[in-house]
Amino acid sequence: MNTPAKRRTDPERAQSRRNQVLQAAAVCFARSGFHGASMSEISKQAGMSAGHIYNYFDSKDAIIMAFVDLQSEHVMTQLSELDSKDDPLQSMIDEAPRHIDESLDPHFFELPMEMCAEAARNPRIAEAMRAADVEAMARFRPIIKRERERRGLAADDALLDGRINTLVSLFHGLPVRALHVPGMHRDALVEGYRVALKALLLT
Amino acid sequence: MNTPAKRRTDPERAQSRRNQVLQAAAVCFARSGFHGASMSEISKQAGMSAGHIYNYFDSKDAIIMAFVDLQSEHVMTQLSELDSKDDPLQSMIDEAPRHIDESLDPHFFELPMEMCAEAARNPRIAEAMRAADVEAMARFRPIIKRERERRGLAADDALLDGRINTLVSLFHGLPVRALHVPGMHRDALVEGYRVALKALLLT
Repeated sequence: MNTPAKRRTDPERAQSRRNQVLQAAAVCFARSGFHGASMSEISKQAGMSAGHIYNYFDSKDAIIMAFVDLQSEHVMTQLSELDSKDDPLQSMIDEAPRHIDESLDPHFFELPMEMCAEAARNPRIAEAMRAADVEAMARFRPIIKRERERRGLAADDALLDGRINTLVSLFHGLPVRALHVPGMHRDALVEGYRVALKALLLT
Repeated sequence: MNTPAKRRTDPERAQSRRNQVLQAAAVCFARSGFHGASMSEISKQAGMSAGHIYNYFDSKDAIIMAFVDLQSEHVMTQLSELDSKDDPLQSMIDEAPRHIDESLDPHFFELPMEMCAEAARNPRIAEAMRAADVEAMARFRPIIKRERERRGLAADDALLDGRINTLVSLFHGLPVRALHVPGMHRDALVEGYRVALKALLLT
């Protein structure tokens, strides 16, 4: 039989408990905001005692940091997939519909929006988001550079910076746009995104 | 001498008091989040009694609604200016640096980010933001349509929808990008934005 001490050191069980807390926290943050949600609300939602939660996360900040890590893992996986394509630039344009659909899913964007609002006032969280971004750019930038050079397009550092930050802004802004215009014409949006992506990547 | 009753009905004084509350609320929302900031925190920041604040705003929702209205007035003014230009499409491209600088100013974006996070969970605020957007689009869209037709470019409804929503996403996303990359190379960003705007507006 598991003793409490053993439970805490079983990595698989600990991971599953951590995920249980994260899922509950996502629900509470969406409902009450990061500042409005208390550790006791999160523990009630997770069906765990507050004391038990503190075994995994010592604060709400630690919970939001875990979301930053999850988001970062998701981005790094997507970048590895991109790097393995025959033609990464063209595939970004071709796959615009998939990225658009993902960005338009409220379950996908509500939490990042809350995280950004919090990062704007919480330097520790902003710092974690920035570090994750530096890591992602260190993976993304060489792909764009290599592929532009392969096509004989300008690929100096300043140009790459500007094009990449514009391109990423485009996707960061889509959930905000969807919040303002819930019934967006999806195919028309795909056309617009392809026009912009093509200009940014292939000219 | 003003009596309290007279004070409440003096429109100029009422407006100045409303602004005092809004400025205090902006500080409190930035510091504590919309859910974390209480009416009593806002009244303390404004140097007014909580009871006095309720003369102007009957809830925090009413305060955030007033921010939606202010934002909307700002957008409508910008659209009138745009409409008065000789060449509105070219001027949007030329004026990218000004819009970028505005979007990169934390005082400009912290509150909208908080409003969006709140709108994602508060249907009344989402509804107000959507209504303001419908009004803005009713002003923006005919300008783009007229100018594209003048240049002999396609201007059917679906295309206009997609191009405009892509373009607006670009600017919605910039503050989020700036949060991730505080030291963005501004001139490189201007180049990227111009490339995207030119493709969206002039092709």
